[in-house]
Amino acid sequence: MNQSSTNKVGVWIAGAHGDISATLIIGTLALTKGLISQAGITTELPPMNRLSLARPGDLIFGGMDISDLSLVDSAESLYKTSRTLSRELLDAVTEELGIINEDILVNNNFKWNPAGPNPSMPTLTELADEITSGIDAFRERHNLSHVVVVNLTSSEPEPEISSQHATIEGLQTLISKNRKDHISPSILLVYTALTASCSYLNFTPNYGTKLGGIRALAQQQCLPFYGNDGKTGETLVKTALAPMFAFRNLQVLSWEGTNMLGNNDGKTLHQPANRVAKLRNKGHVLENILGYEPHSGVDINYVPSLGDWKTAWDLIHFQGFLDVKMSMQFTWQGCDSILAAPLVLDMVRFSEFAARNGEAGPMQHLASFFKDPMDVPEMALHTQFERLLKYTEKHLSNQQATTASRLNQAG
Amino acid sequence: MNQSSTNKVGVWIAGAHGDISATLIIGTLALTKGLISQAGITTELPPMNRLSLARPGDLIFGGMDISDLSLVDSAESLYKTSRTLSRELLDAVTEELGIINEDILVNNNFKWNPAGPNPSMPTLTELADEITSGIDAFRERHNLSHVVVVNLTSSEPEPEISSQHATIEGLQTLISKNRKDHISPSILLVYTALTASCSYLNFTPNYGTKLGGIRALAQQQCLPFYGNDGKTGETLVKTALAPMFAFRNLQVLSWEGTNMLGNNDGKTLHQPANRVAKLRNKGHVLENILGYEPHSGVDINYVPSLGDWKTAWDLIHFQGFLDVKMSMQFTWQGCDSILAAPLVLDMVRFSEFAARNGEAGPMQHLASFFKDPMDVPEMALHTQFERLLKYTEKHLSNQQATTASRLNQAG
Amino acid sequence: MNQSSTNKVGVWIAGAHGDISATLIIGTLALTKGLISQAGITTELPPMNRLSLARPGDLIFGGMDISDLSLVDSAESLYKTSRTLSRELLDAVTEELGIINEDILVNNNFKWNPAGPNPSMPTLTELADEITSGIDAFRERHNLSHVVVVNLTSSEPEPEISSQHATIEGLQTLISKNRKDHISPSILLVYTALTASCSYLNFTPNYGTKLGGIRALAQQQCLPFYGNDGKTGETLVKTALAPMFAFRNLQVLSWEGTNMLGNNDGKTLHQPANRVAKLRNKGHVLENILGYEPHSGVDINYVPSLGDWKTAWDLIHFQGFLDVKMSMQFTWQGCDSILAAPLVLDMVRFSEFAARNGEAGPMQHLASFFKDPMDVPEMALHTQFERLLKYTEKHLSNQQATTASRLNQAG
Amino acid sequence: MNQSSTNKVGVWIAGAHGDISATLIIGTLALTKGLISQAGITTELPPMNRLSLARPGDLIFGGMDISDLSLVDSAESLYKTSRTLSRELLDAVTEELGIINEDILVNNNFKWNPAGPNPSMPTLTELADEITSGIDAFRERHNLSHVVVVNLTSSEPEPEISSQHATIEGLQTLISKNRKDHISPSILLVYTALTASCSYLNFTPNYGTKLGGIRALAQQQCLPFYGNDGKTGETLVKTALAPMFAFRNLQVLSWEGTNMLGNNDGKTLHQPANRVAKLRNKGHVLENILGYEPHSGVDINYVPSLGDWKTAWDLIHFQGFLDVKMSMQFTWQGCDSILAAPLVLDMVRFSEFAARNGEAGPMQHLASFFKDPMDVPEMALHTQFERLLKYTEKHLSNQQATTASRLNQAG
Repeated sequence: MNQSSTNKVGVWIAGAHGDISATLIIGTLALTKGLISQAGITTELPPMNRLSLARPGDLIFGGMDISDLSLVDSAESLYKTSRTLSRELLDAVTEELGIINEDILVNNNFKWNPAGPNPSMPTLTELADEITSGIDAFRERHNLSHVVVVNLTSSEPEPEISSQHATIEGLQTLISKNRKDHISPSILLVYTALTASCSYLNFTPNYGTKLGGIRALAQQQCLPFYGNDGKTGETLVKTALAPMFAFRNLQVLSWEGTNMLGNNDGKTLHQPANRVAKLRNKGHVLENILGYEPHSGVDINYVPSLGDWKTAWDLIHFQGFLDVKMSMQFTWQGCDSILAAPLVLDMVRFSEFAARNGEAGPMQHLASFFKDPMDVPEMALHTQFERLLKYTEKHLSNQQATTASRLNQAG
Repeated sequence: MNQSSTNKVGVWIAGAHGDISATLIIGTLALTKGLISQAGITTELPPMNRLSLARPGDLIFGGMDISDLSLVDSAESLYKTSRTLSRELLDAVTEELGIINEDILVNNNFKWNPAGPNPSMPTLTELADEITSGIDAFRERHNLSHVVVVNLTSSEPEPEISSQHATIEGLQTLISKNRKDHISPSILLVYTALTASCSYLNFTPNYGTKLGGIRALAQQQCLPFYGNDGKTGETLVKTALAPMFAFRNLQVLSWEGTNMLGNNDGKTLHQPANRVAKLRNKGHVLENILGYEPHSGVDINYVPSLGDWKTAWDLIHFQGFLDVKMSMQFTWQGCDSILAAPLVLDMVRFSEFAARNGEAGPMQHLASFFKDPMDVPEMALHTQFERLLKYTEKHLSNQQATTASRLNQAG
Repeated sequence: MNQSSTNKVGVWIAGAHGDISATLIIGTLALTKGLISQAGITTELPPMNRLSLARPGDLIFGGMDISDLSLVDSAESLYKTSRTLSRELLDAVTEELGIINEDILVNNNFKWNPAGPNPSMPTLTELADEITSGIDAFRERHNLSHVVVVNLTSSEPEPEISSQHATIEGLQTLISKNRKDHISPSILLVYTALTASCSYLNFTPNYGTKLGGIRALAQQQCLPFYGNDGKTGETLVKTALAPMFAFRNLQVLSWEGTNMLGNNDGKTLHQPANRVAKLRNKGHVLENILGYEPHSGVDINYVPSLGDWKTAWDLIHFQGFLDVKMSMQFTWQGCDSILAAPLVLDMVRFSEFAARNGEAGPMQHLASFFKDPMDVPEMALHTQFERLLKYTEKHLSNQQATTASRLNQAG
Repeated sequence: MNQSSTNKVGVWIAGAHGDISATLIIGTLALTKGLISQAGITTELPPMNRLSLARPGDLIFGGMDISDLSLVDSAESLYKTSRTLSRELLDAVTEELGIINEDILVNNNFKWNPAGPNPSMPTLTELADEITSGIDAFRERHNLSHVVVVNLTSSEPEPEISSQHATIEGLQTLISKNRKDHISPSILLVYTALTASCSYLNFTPNYGTKLGGIRALAQQQCLPFYGNDGKTGETLVKTALAPMFAFRNLQVLSWEGTNMLGNNDGKTLHQPANRVAKLRNKGHVLENILGYEPHSGVDINYVPSLGDWKTAWDLIHFQGFLDVKMSMQFTWQGCDSILAAPLVLDMVRFSEFAARNGEAGPMQHLASFFKDPMDVPEMALHTQFERLLKYTEKHLSNQQATTASRLNQAG
């Protein structure tokens, strides 16, 4: 454990002024101060809590955003609209939020619509340079042993994908030619992050991590990365519940879902172009678990009064013995940022751990945290979670072996 | 597969005139006639469907009941009250139901209240003899290779348990002394079944299978048995869903359940004495999966208009990151007999298979079918189901080996 | 009561082969035969049941459809998909359904898309003549004292409305010029019905009844008519529940609704053009009752496995004292045809009664049966129902007076 | 309006340290300071807001409790457990809460169990004297024009009722003989309040107001009073929704309710003796509205983690046309104190108004606020609310007439 305790780990967040980011930063500070319990944090469960992961107090936050709202503004708005923070908690961290805010770059050119017009704006190269400089300065200023870049931006329209995306060189060419129709913000971000020696987490449904060129780059840089699309609500329940229908041979006729959201995510997803990626990730889960594709639809509605709270209602219509039709409904009333933030905390700790252990490429052991986990065929929550347990146990026996051998040498 | 196809297997049902029994028998007939799909039947899923299990058409039904309602009456009542059968289906099997009915013993002395008075009635020995003769005649009449006894009666008040229950001899003594306060109907049933060389399934929460004397008897007779309390509704969902909260370290504060039932089960469970066993089985599931015991209550209400339909509503109140309280609700609208009957079919097939393979004692691989599975510590549905998969795969590789060696010899 | 008992009343249904029509006809036959209770029928409640309304046995059914499916086919499909009819009930009426079917005109030209192309097909005049001949023959064949035309077709795209729609002459001109872009099927139907001396009920959201020209025609013909859009599910609940929030000054922030439908209505409404009229009628209800317009959305999803069953889920987010946000949800699981058919029966009886009493124009006392009741400002269910009670009481005191004077004369 | 604006009105609360009381007092202060909206307050709706009611700023709070928790403690606990108050709101009123607290008598002898033992404690006469002195001092200290006594205590076991309860003299005798088995706390309270010239509101299900002796006393003292049992949640919805089933002749087969509560009320109602009164009030509502008594049950469960939040789930099983069974469910997630407090505010204003206008006896126009409204036969929410509207309109036309005549005299 002595490695992590002497080193600071950077967390560079794209979308650093957003609700998840604010919740993550406040929560990490509050944990360090002992103001909250460890509820919601998977890495604090046994046996994960026996790994030598970076401690919450070792994490240093910075990042970038298109909005110049400060972290304190975001926190206050979260407090007022959603009542997920107490005034006392907010007061206890406000000063530190102000300081962290200085490590957040603001530039509304960090976002563009790949399918839209492309007026005179900073080129992709200029943007990449700005991000790289920001990360480098951040790393140096805080004397960081490693930086994890986390994408917490909202859904973006899909870029046009070509064969050039399949290689590092192809991506370089597209960037240098300023092809904003081919390079979406999330592609530029993961490219820049890996180039800048950062591990990378894609909490969004956006395209970046899926490209052959990115995969090659991660291997070349010997860096871990993973995604896509954090699993926090309806899909989480779906992947826990659908196996029950499968085990019992209960034929799911229809599984219909309705999501009511009041935050920015809801506003963005209300626009059809942004919704495509999100819905695709929600869709193929059932076919994977059930072995057939039931009728299935997912509605996403923007309901401003809900603030950061999400209410999802699912109707499951299924057929049992004698072909009798029965049904199940569930309502999920969760707070999006509260559910998402601890997953990011967990995965940042795992990313730094993987990087420290020289593991490169997709971190399949993080599958249970994502709607669309890379390189992992199974969608059932429990089989995904088993990957995390196995990974943990493998490293724990390594740790033990190392300790034993160290003790032997010392002896 | 040739073993099972030439042999008839008996299914001797205690509670043979009840809803589950009628549904099971009608469904098995309908399956054989190709009138319904295989929905709801776990043994028809791969890889279980590759085991050489008895085919539905090989099952011969008989049994006993305290009510002299005929099977056809029960089926008609199910049709009218709950609309789970179509008229066409019922018409297609009515004649056969009439014939099967002749293999059902009726005696309202098969039930007594261990805690109640004990007036002049047949003694336990007389009752045991009646059951044994019934089973023997049934076996002979249909030339059965094996008989599985299934307990589908309703909840009974708990008997007084003493050290005598821990041995075969103790049980014999209690029976011969006609101690109806110590020997409940379900204890007499399992004792008699095993003595009569039948394997045994306890689909009820009743006490019989849990005794040391019964366990010893099964070993002595080299017979498989299992229980307790079929898992068909709210608890099924609970054991599928609770692991999700555990994996994410979401602290369950309260998990409250309400069950509305309109069938005999609901009427019986409305009486506090009968409810004890049922509620106990529902209770300890959460502590097992979560590692702590949240506030938890289960209400059972008798709502006659629902007929055989059950509506369960659960409220789950949980705490996540920043100690924010969130909630989930689900409503389960299932038909009890429709959910229960195929489990009995599955387990009858597995029991005969185990007996044919000389396996004695508790069949832990059937854990996923029960609320309170014997000798199995884990309550999470997916880990229980894994036991079934492993058992199946072990036998499949044996089967393959056997087939291979037979082919070799033939060659 | 002697007037109605000696006379047969015709019910001419547009959409006579549909689910609501089949349910209505079967139910009316079953009522007459004493096979079902009076559940669902408002006119059988006191004091309405003391009016001299036509008896179910006096109603003779006929009509028209674009589909050549027979009534028996529709009934069988209803029986199979939705289990809302028992086999026994169906068997008891099958022969009569076959006979009634002979009074149903089939012509797939009865429907056209006003916004679509207009290829060579029967002209509006030809279609109107066909309908008129059909009704006339029906009236004569059965010696009917009066015919009520009921529109039970599905939603249609809206026609282009011009100033010509405001007068009888304008409508005549549009019809004679075969302007299918201005004259939708529902406009032609109500025009033809009134011209043929029939009273008219619009159970659909379609446009016909709303035109000035139709209103004038009803007055000229001295005929009652009413609409629009039968209120059977979510909106029914909404208009019962919203007043509660109004009375308590609980500010509704958002009222979001989701409708899952498996019948033809669901299929049609899945197409955006057809949905316009439907959603408009659902929308303005809240503003009317609450006095302000909360955020509100209504989703309509086609879920085939539900058959004729509809599942609606509504989320109501509201603000109370200290501006605290609270919420309510409801799930409505009803069978569309079963809920709609008795309303049609009720209103047919009221229409004939109004016609017999020489009442012309919109029947505002039927407001509680419609989502968008004509000429009635209030949307709260209880105030609408009060209109029916007042109307009934007025006529009951007339009836009493008449009886009293007759008895006097007799004496 | 000048009458009320120059006079201060006292609100003497039994249970002044409880959640509803704290919410009421904080809300009234916040309203006066303009910190919250008027949401939840019926008297701020037109036309009620045109009556010359006491203004929130004119209300002076005091009272009594058995707990010595201060008002500030209660408010802090409400803030922490239930997040219904913001820190800012609490800070803005804390000082005033401290001052109001000095007007609250604390004596744990204000409560006793009528069915329990009766050890040496203050006699009923001593307790009555203490309350009277408290009220008198409160009235004098604040120069109050009128005092309204409000019972906000929790449910109490029912006292033994005799013929002596039917007269003023009988009550006097029971009190002077210290018959705590016949005089429950709520009886002593209303007796004392009326004797001390206060009007009285019984927000609890407790017995006091129902006695003939109390009725006579109110008439003798010329004072208004009303009860019983504030209607804030499940029953509120029930009385809004049940008329819908009645209007449509939909036969309610079963209406089952489950209430989850986390506050003191939940804890108290968990004890069967205290539950009797509560459940009785919830029960007869359906029979009154529907005209028949469906199967119906209400469960009350204590779920501590919910704090002041209540979650109620109701299942309504009903039968429609063709005797088809359908169902509706609703979930009500409200905060008890937030729903109750504004009703108390409304009724205090109406009580003072009635007293000022010389109205004595039960205030039936307040029926819509109660589960078990005195002297009002109808249970449907809308007909109850109509009483309030009619009462208001009658007084408004009086006000207008008075103003008009005053203007005439002035002219």
